[in-house]
Amino acid sequence: MIITLEKSATEKQVQDIKDALSTYGGTVTKVNTQGGFYLVAVGGKEFDIRVIGGLDGVKDVHYVRDPYQLVSRQWKVKPTAIDLGDGVLIGADEHQVMAGPCSIEGEAQVRASVAHLVSVGARIMRGGVFKPRSSPYSFRGLGLEGLKMWSDIAHENGIKIVTEVLDASQIEMIYPYVDMYQVGARNSQNFTLLDALGRVDKPVLLKRGMSGTLEELLQSAEYIFSNGNEKILLCERGIRTFEKAYRNVLDLNAVPYLKDKSHLPVVVDPSHGVGVRKYVAQMALAGVVAGADATLLEVHEKPEQAKSDAAQTLSFDEATRVIKQIRELKF
Amino acid sequence: MIITLEKSATEKQVQDIKDALSTYGGTVTKVNTQGGFYLVAVGGKEFDIRVIGGLDGVKDVHYVRDPYQLVSRQWKVKPTAIDLGDGVLIGADEHQVMAGPCSIEGEAQVRASVAHLVSVGARIMRGGVFKPRSSPYSFRGLGLEGLKMWSDIAHENGIKIVTEVLDASQIEMIYPYVDMYQVGARNSQNFTLLDALGRVDKPVLLKRGMSGTLEELLQSAEYIFSNGNEKILLCERGIRTFEKAYRNVLDLNAVPYLKDKSHLPVVVDPSHGVGVRKYVAQMALAGVVAGADATLLEVHEKPEQAKSDAAQTLSFDEATRVIKQIRELKF
Amino acid sequence: MIITLEKSATEKQVQDIKDALSTYGGTVTKVNTQGGFYLVAVGGKEFDIRVIGGLDGVKDVHYVRDPYQLVSRQWKVKPTAIDLGDGVLIGADEHQVMAGPCSIEGEAQVRASVAHLVSVGARIMRGGVFKPRSSPYSFRGLGLEGLKMWSDIAHENGIKIVTEVLDASQIEMIYPYVDMYQVGARNSQNFTLLDALGRVDKPVLLKRGMSGTLEELLQSAEYIFSNGNEKILLCERGIRTFEKAYRNVLDLNAVPYLKDKSHLPVVVDPSHGVGVRKYVAQMALAGVVAGADATLLEVHEKPEQAKSDAAQTLSFDEATRVIKQIRELKF
Amino acid sequence: MIITLEKSATEKQVQDIKDALSTYGGTVTKVNTQGGFYLVAVGGKEFDIRVIGGLDGVKDVHYVRDPYQLVSRQWKVKPTAIDLGDGVLIGADEHQVMAGPCSIEGEAQVRASVAHLVSVGARIMRGGVFKPRSSPYSFRGLGLEGLKMWSDIAHENGIKIVTEVLDASQIEMIYPYVDMYQVGARNSQNFTLLDALGRVDKPVLLKRGMSGTLEELLQSAEYIFSNGNEKILLCERGIRTFEKAYRNVLDLNAVPYLKDKSHLPVVVDPSHGVGVRKYVAQMALAGVVAGADATLLEVHEKPEQAKSDAAQTLSFDEATRVIKQIRELKF
Repeated sequence: MIITLEKSATEKQVQDIKDALSTYGGTVTKVNTQGGFYLVAVGGKEFDIRVIGGLDGVKDVHYVRDPYQLVSRQWKVKPTAIDLGDGVLIGADEHQVMAGPCSIEGEAQVRASVAHLVSVGARIMRGGVFKPRSSPYSFRGLGLEGLKMWSDIAHENGIKIVTEVLDASQIEMIYPYVDMYQVGARNSQNFTLLDALGRVDKPVLLKRGMSGTLEELLQSAEYIFSNGNEKILLCERGIRTFEKAYRNVLDLNAVPYLKDKSHLPVVVDPSHGVGVRKYVAQMALAGVVAGADATLLEVHEKPEQAKSDAAQTLSFDEATRVIKQIRELKF
Repeated sequence: MIITLEKSATEKQVQDIKDALSTYGGTVTKVNTQGGFYLVAVGGKEFDIRVIGGLDGVKDVHYVRDPYQLVSRQWKVKPTAIDLGDGVLIGADEHQVMAGPCSIEGEAQVRASVAHLVSVGARIMRGGVFKPRSSPYSFRGLGLEGLKMWSDIAHENGIKIVTEVLDASQIEMIYPYVDMYQVGARNSQNFTLLDALGRVDKPVLLKRGMSGTLEELLQSAEYIFSNGNEKILLCERGIRTFEKAYRNVLDLNAVPYLKDKSHLPVVVDPSHGVGVRKYVAQMALAGVVAGADATLLEVHEKPEQAKSDAAQTLSFDEATRVIKQIRELKF
Repeated sequence: MIITLEKSATEKQVQDIKDALSTYGGTVTKVNTQGGFYLVAVGGKEFDIRVIGGLDGVKDVHYVRDPYQLVSRQWKVKPTAIDLGDGVLIGADEHQVMAGPCSIEGEAQVRASVAHLVSVGARIMRGGVFKPRSSPYSFRGLGLEGLKMWSDIAHENGIKIVTEVLDASQIEMIYPYVDMYQVGARNSQNFTLLDALGRVDKPVLLKRGMSGTLEELLQSAEYIFSNGNEKILLCERGIRTFEKAYRNVLDLNAVPYLKDKSHLPVVVDPSHGVGVRKYVAQMALAGVVAGADATLLEVHEKPEQAKSDAAQTLSFDEATRVIKQIRELKF
Repeated sequence: MIITLEKSATEKQVQDIKDALSTYGGTVTKVNTQGGFYLVAVGGKEFDIRVIGGLDGVKDVHYVRDPYQLVSRQWKVKPTAIDLGDGVLIGADEHQVMAGPCSIEGEAQVRASVAHLVSVGARIMRGGVFKPRSSPYSFRGLGLEGLKMWSDIAHENGIKIVTEVLDASQIEMIYPYVDMYQVGARNSQNFTLLDALGRVDKPVLLKRGMSGTLEELLQSAEYIFSNGNEKILLCERGIRTFEKAYRNVLDLNAVPYLKDKSHLPVVVDPSHGVGVRKYVAQMALAGVVAGADATLLEVHEKPEQAKSDAAQTLSFDEATRVIKQIRELKF
């Protein structure tokens, strides 16, 4: 149950509403976001929404029967668009492509990538500076210095950037430089991180866990939202199955499902999703047709020399072609 | 290794080639299909293809390093189109839609379905008369009599039909009435059935097992081919994973993979694949964009009254709409 | 709902009971097995069992709320033991070991295996003469002649044999030679085969499908039972998951589950289950402790020279040791 | 490659060894743990171990061909025992049971649990004070105050405690109160947390991810070890598969595999693993026979009133019985 409060609601009014709700049992959580003030009541008995709806300070009341609440379309039926500023919107009319390398490697690489993005009219660059690696002995990224360099070059050229944050302790440190935080598959249920990302006001691209259910993904989004940050994107990036013909199984069924259940925008990552370079373009196009609002592409000037995951990375030419195809799709 | 024989090759010549091959070890299998005569050599040492290629009766020699041979694109690089007669081709220029009910229920239902297909210009109807059911107490289909009735009505209206065959013993019995045999997911490694379907000359639509790898699917196709029947279609129909938000995970990654590895046409079944009616259309379109040659759709005049699987069945109107969208897709 | 009939029930009485049941809707199936006569009513409304129980010809009535009926412990709470004759029982006090090679290869191999079984006091030998192979070019077993030879040698030495049947057409042919039929994982939902095995009176060892749910396994057992054959063993043989450290994941959770839900004996196949020779013994012991009634072991005089699956095959010494350990287990 | 250094090795000697190693390429990492000083060389060319072995300051050199190094049995062939103090060892002769509730709920509950442990002679109590919850609206545990209370009561009674740590920021805070840190399945690849746990000197019980491969689990252990903490236990707690008959599939195949590949002790958690109360005891016993060094059991005075996961929680009586059975097992 979501009780949307009037912006003008007084503390006294809110307390009265809470008291009224408490008679039904369950828990009541006060949520303040960039978009509004809410009370979320879960676990209690059903109540007559007219009773609660009639209280002072209440703007609206919605039944939400999903286990997640504020990210559910049972509450907000219209899709949400996320605004990165300067006219860059995800979840609005235009399908967005976020392209770039797996890892930020150096200034020359960044300049080449940014120039490529500008040349194809893309507005968002992806790249890693803190890399989660299975092995402790692998390259873990250029860190904060790499991020600053990248951020400067990208912003000078009108490009927004998104990068993975591995831990709550990094959030503040990288805040001035990023336009969007990415939560990786391994952290999809790192609740400390999700709580902390709920307390900043920049968008969060939340990836599904390797074997995360979509309900869990939406619950993780609820963590962010209920801590105060409405700016969330849900990302399908491939799941683990018995099939080893490709790296993961990009689960495009998730796209219509998530669009049906949630108002949040949906991003598809075909690069990690299928993990085989020559199949990425077809899966990217299929994702768009399935209803995705944005596509994440791993792109490198020289895929064979990329620091990692070269097996799934597109060249500039390949990326240019698929971006063009996405824009020409008619369906 | 595939040695394509001259059609005019004499028994003596074939024996000489076999003798020459035997010096390399492994096994040699003679395959006669509608399309040609072949020797398939597996498990032996590599040989100089010029030596074997120079023998009388040899038309061509191909190295095939896949575990499957005659279904591999390492042998036949051009895609194969399957001809159902009367200009109905799968794997040629036009994307084909095969639509119809899960089960054939009666004459009125068949007439309505056929009329629907004719109205949308589709040429192939699917339907079950022998139904594989988890429970022995469930309806198992109308059987041969139902098939005859269906076949008559469909063929009078220029519609081809495809139906599931559960067992080798049914093949001959239903031969006069069907245009294409379907092997269901549960029989994807029923080798007796596959062997027997290799000895008929009608096309076989082979579904991937519920947790069948794509390599296994191609090996199963090799069973049919190596017994003499080149007319095979590979069908992705959803796999089993941990995710329970939908019935199966339609694995569209299989489409570019199978088109890359095999010359056989690829069919996508979004109805069983995702198993949720309201997501079928988007997944069908995504499958087409991913590269499928044909789409299988479960359609019923009154989905709510269908004998089974109503939860994934489209109405006539919904099917008409998605077929129209498929035809208008530009990519 | 299961209505157990008196053995003396007349046709007229049975018809009266059916008529009475028909008023509740659903379907009623008459089942005659070696053990008794039953009516199985599914899909209808609940009824007062005292009403049906009071009819002439009715011996007992049980509510069964599982989707499967005659294999459920809601009907038969005591475990069933399967009698192979000559005092060889599975599901009674003694834990049985069925050992032998993947494939029957020749007389010398059979004699050595039989001698090994005799030396360790085991009573049942496993072996394949019709082998399901992923590739059509692989060795498919010695067939009927191999079976006859094996059957003779084993029976002369007091050893019972179990072998896989691939197709309904083989059942009658091999009937005189086998003591138990095996249904392999790939045929776990081959309903034609299951129906046909329900019409013979020898035991059937039914393997779980590679990604078969336990409910599906029990439904497949119900096919056999409802066609007239009560002599069924359920076999856990490893499932497909994301993990590739071993061949399959032997799912020992299935053992307490199946013993809880069904009265049929449960067999564990650690050889296929984990598929790594050096882990087989520990998994075999764990299966016994988990509650299995019997263990299937793949054993070969010279594992390195076995025709297949050598990677999981025990030597005679290794098998002797694990059989001894099984017998000494105290828990 | 692992170069074990003399404890007396000088900085100059270490630098000389590093210089020598650098000629082979790859990376060299210096690792200082409670147990010794090591150089780990990965990714370079193979070298003659006699050359490196001959350098001053080198105690021993081992080839390790696994992707993980210091946790591999290729380096340390003898099993490692973890000492919790006061004679409580895991991985030594005695099988240890760690029992307790899912969540610490209050003093009365803790006193009852501690008394139960004392009565059965168990030495380690498990319990959660920071609970990872799918939903942000669920009870998240009593936190630090609860931990202090629990720690006091347990330690007064000679019981060691293990509790989950959700985030690197909690490590120092809870250090004075815990005897062992637990890393939950959702954090199995939270590399920031693993790095930080490598810098403390208390044991870490590391759970496998929900769909974590065993290689990933061992790499995660390598994170902890290579940061300086050798005291690691590996825990199998059930994986995600297609099967929904139980909560997870407890993968006992992992036990012989991990004991084979690593020198670290292995713990089995049958409570989360199968997740069904009446199957826990059999799976616990099976885990012991499969080779586990310790068992984690979820136990509550009144399972029906436990704050969470009651469906898998044993009563005191049930726990007493299974602990007794574990001790009496002979195999």
